[in-house]
Amino acid sequence: MNLRLISKSLGALLAIVAVCMLPSLIMSMVYSDGCAPAFTLTIVILTAVSLIMNSIKPKSTEIYPRDGFAIVGFGWILSAVFGALPFLISGVIPSVTDALFESVSGFTTTGASILAEVESLPRSIIFWRSFTNWMGGVGVLALMMAILPSVKANSIHIMQAEAPGPYVDKFTPRISWVARILYVIYVGITFSEVIFLLLGGVPLYDAVVFSMSTTSTGGFSSRDLSVGAYNSAYIEIVITVFMLLCGINLSLYQMILRGKIKAALKDSEARFFLSVFVCATVFITINLVARNNTAFPEAIRHAAFQVSTLITSTGFSSMDFNMWPEFSKTILIMVMFMGGCTGSTAGGIKCMRILLIFKILRNELAKILHPNAVHVTRLNGKPVEESVLTGILSFVILYMLVLAASMVVISLDGFSLTTSFTAVLATVSNMGPGLDMVGPMGNYSGFSDLSKIVLTVCMLLGRLEIYPIILLCAPSFWKQSNK
Amino acid sequence: MNLRLISKSLGALLAIVAVCMLPSLIMSMVYSDGCAPAFTLTIVILTAVSLIMNSIKPKSTEIYPRDGFAIVGFGWILSAVFGALPFLISGVIPSVTDALFESVSGFTTTGASILAEVESLPRSIIFWRSFTNWMGGVGVLALMMAILPSVKANSIHIMQAEAPGPYVDKFTPRISWVARILYVIYVGITFSEVIFLLLGGVPLYDAVVFSMSTTSTGGFSSRDLSVGAYNSAYIEIVITVFMLLCGINLSLYQMILRGKIKAALKDSEARFFLSVFVCATVFITINLVARNNTAFPEAIRHAAFQVSTLITSTGFSSMDFNMWPEFSKTILIMVMFMGGCTGSTAGGIKCMRILLIFKILRNELAKILHPNAVHVTRLNGKPVEESVLTGILSFVILYMLVLAASMVVISLDGFSLTTSFTAVLATVSNMGPGLDMVGPMGNYSGFSDLSKIVLTVCMLLGRLEIYPIILLCAPSFWKQSNK
Repeated sequence: MNLRLISKSLGALLAIVAVCMLPSLIMSMVYSDGCAPAFTLTIVILTAVSLIMNSIKPKSTEIYPRDGFAIVGFGWILSAVFGALPFLISGVIPSVTDALFESVSGFTTTGASILAEVESLPRSIIFWRSFTNWMGGVGVLALMMAILPSVKANSIHIMQAEAPGPYVDKFTPRISWVARILYVIYVGITFSEVIFLLLGGVPLYDAVVFSMSTTSTGGFSSRDLSVGAYNSAYIEIVITVFMLLCGINLSLYQMILRGKIKAALKDSEARFFLSVFVCATVFITINLVARNNTAFPEAIRHAAFQVSTLITSTGFSSMDFNMWPEFSKTILIMVMFMGGCTGSTAGGIKCMRILLIFKILRNELAKILHPNAVHVTRLNGKPVEESVLTGILSFVILYMLVLAASMVVISLDGFSLTTSFTAVLATVSNMGPGLDMVGPMGNYSGFSDLSKIVLTVCMLLGRLEIYPIILLCAPSFWKQSNK
Repeated sequence: MNLRLISKSLGALLAIVAVCMLPSLIMSMVYSDGCAPAFTLTIVILTAVSLIMNSIKPKSTEIYPRDGFAIVGFGWILSAVFGALPFLISGVIPSVTDALFESVSGFTTTGASILAEVESLPRSIIFWRSFTNWMGGVGVLALMMAILPSVKANSIHIMQAEAPGPYVDKFTPRISWVARILYVIYVGITFSEVIFLLLGGVPLYDAVVFSMSTTSTGGFSSRDLSVGAYNSAYIEIVITVFMLLCGINLSLYQMILRGKIKAALKDSEARFFLSVFVCATVFITINLVARNNTAFPEAIRHAAFQVSTLITSTGFSSMDFNMWPEFSKTILIMVMFMGGCTGSTAGGIKCMRILLIFKILRNELAKILHPNAVHVTRLNGKPVEESVLTGILSFVILYMLVLAASMVVISLDGFSLTTSFTAVLATVSNMGPGLDMVGPMGNYSGFSDLSKIVLTVCMLLGRLEIYPIILLCAPSFWKQSNK
């Protein structure tokens, strides 16, 4: 383990977090909302810790998979811990557990909250919540690599450990370049949404907050009723479109910019993602019209918005889907499990894995009928390696085990099975709202501290796709030699 | 596809079903409960159909995997269809959907019922329900092979397609001998339980019914309150012990009879199974004492009984665990997922698979840290082939997909998410009772016909471990050549 290099990289990361806190500090000064001292103090602490860690000289710049996992695991934990300080120091969230929950929820783009209402909060704090969403979207370490290409830890291992989804295609070796392109696209999409929201009459402050929470598929908002506060079809459509855009692999936009439009449009995962979105919307629309006597235009509007917000794991709400018929709720739960595309900002199991699982299962059936034939699984026409397939199957089962184990602990609080289950699912999939007590009009404040800690860990497990966090806890990760 | 041989084998199977109906016919004459004509008519129909199918001369006695799957798939469907006739003809269950549900629930050892009460039913019908449990326990085709070793379809492919669990060890080629040994052990266990129950003061009729439903881990009973009707610690302990005995791989008893006691006691799967039983019982006991103020002796008695009845997928009830705290209910749901051991009469995913999944996941973590090392998964000291491991992972995910897809359809009925989810889980795992409406004091009569059909298919999918039924529905299963 190259501890010196890990420490130096984390120092650089904390410097980036400090810089990212400046806009919130400026906000607090502009609105004089009393949080300027909290942000200033946090920035000072961050700078000091960053300088100390950065002063360590690594003996070697070589980086192994386990170093990559350590940088990613600790990088996210440290960002979230320091990101919680403004909540704590300003007194807006007095409990350490709650502040950490809110901060992790922000960075992991979950958007689950222990706050019952947000409109009464200082504006700089609301802004910081959404800014953590935005930083977490593509990844805090990707941000570091994009801004500081000179940091020697720029490595495929970090990119692989942080970015969501399995790697079917090999990454280009110029990681910092990839990170920069991703961020250019990401900033571009965010700005476009701000403009569209301004055109719909949303005030600038809200437009910026909502845009950051949309493109990161985070879901923190500046309004108590979330998107529902505007009750505007135009705004819901704009946000629906931008959520879906960010649920698709961002590298497809890079392909489009480079003129490979045809190849991008043929991407199996994006097609699968959009097909599921359309099917789920149609089913729920029919169900709402038939069971709840909702008028068709309203039914399709709410169905499309809720499906897109849950399939991309954003978690905005335009209405209380807790009141929808059981069939619609069941469809929403299934969609929560799936999530968005690999390389997007969305959470969940990811479309790529679900798509490959269907192909693997078809192959398993074929194997039973023709035990001696050769069965190859393909994606976008290219064969996928056997070890990648085993990895995908194992990941999905590990995902289920994390859900099961967390649910057992949460159930000690004695809330309904639906509350416990959807709370765990909504945090592991980085969604935000679930059903019953944690429904779109509810929040997570009712849970015990133990449950909040478990759910906080769930959010990290979900965002980093489990392995980095589990590895940090494995004794063998620390024991063995350098390789 | 060797259709002639398939037809001949199915004819032999129906003859066995006809013979198995004789005890119920005798019962109906002894108790003069008016069901003798129904049983007589069914036996006549069965005999006629059996004779016609048996008269077909196969051109070849060679049997391929797909023939084995066809025999098993159709064998179970036909047994259940003809097994439903006594319910229908006697008028006890007038609806075709309901009668089929009850019959499939019997043969698959699920024990889910659409009947609100059983004590008022004709005694021969109650006896037949439990007899279908008993026949389904080890398997209707295993029964055929044990009784009619001359049927040429005796094949490893049938045994593999019918018996629960993945095959890690290769089977001995003398299948009919294996089947006979299994049935000798099975009958022995059943008789022992009858004697223990008689010693506890249970009337002979009830003792036989309960013993058949226990050893098959089916769960149909002759009392409205199930085992709770006796409110006797002795009877609950006897049944707990016998359920656990039948949740273990029956071939371990064969090993013990052959003197290999040490090897049998070292079996990893059985140890894992019993450890989970003990842990779940301890957790629930503590929870009941702490939350529900239940006295310790009562808490441990009920906890042990409910855990054993659900881990073995029997589904008897000694009390309404619907009223237990959420933590206990969550533990019970987890236990339902797991189920018993490979080669037992129990349902669920099976301990062997869960055990191997933990080993696979440990290996996946090791692969991340040491990508170039060789990682071998072992069970009972022997290496397990990579293809078996992929098969296990795929099976568990397919199991989850079956649960998800069925739940979507069931949710159309509009019952609570807990009802829909546990109804699907309780049928796929061949358990019987779930929670909420389908709890131990509830039943399945409230569902729509569509849901009942889906749940009926779920029971078959669960008992035959999905593949045989899915293959029957796959067009490619029918299209291609003989090999």
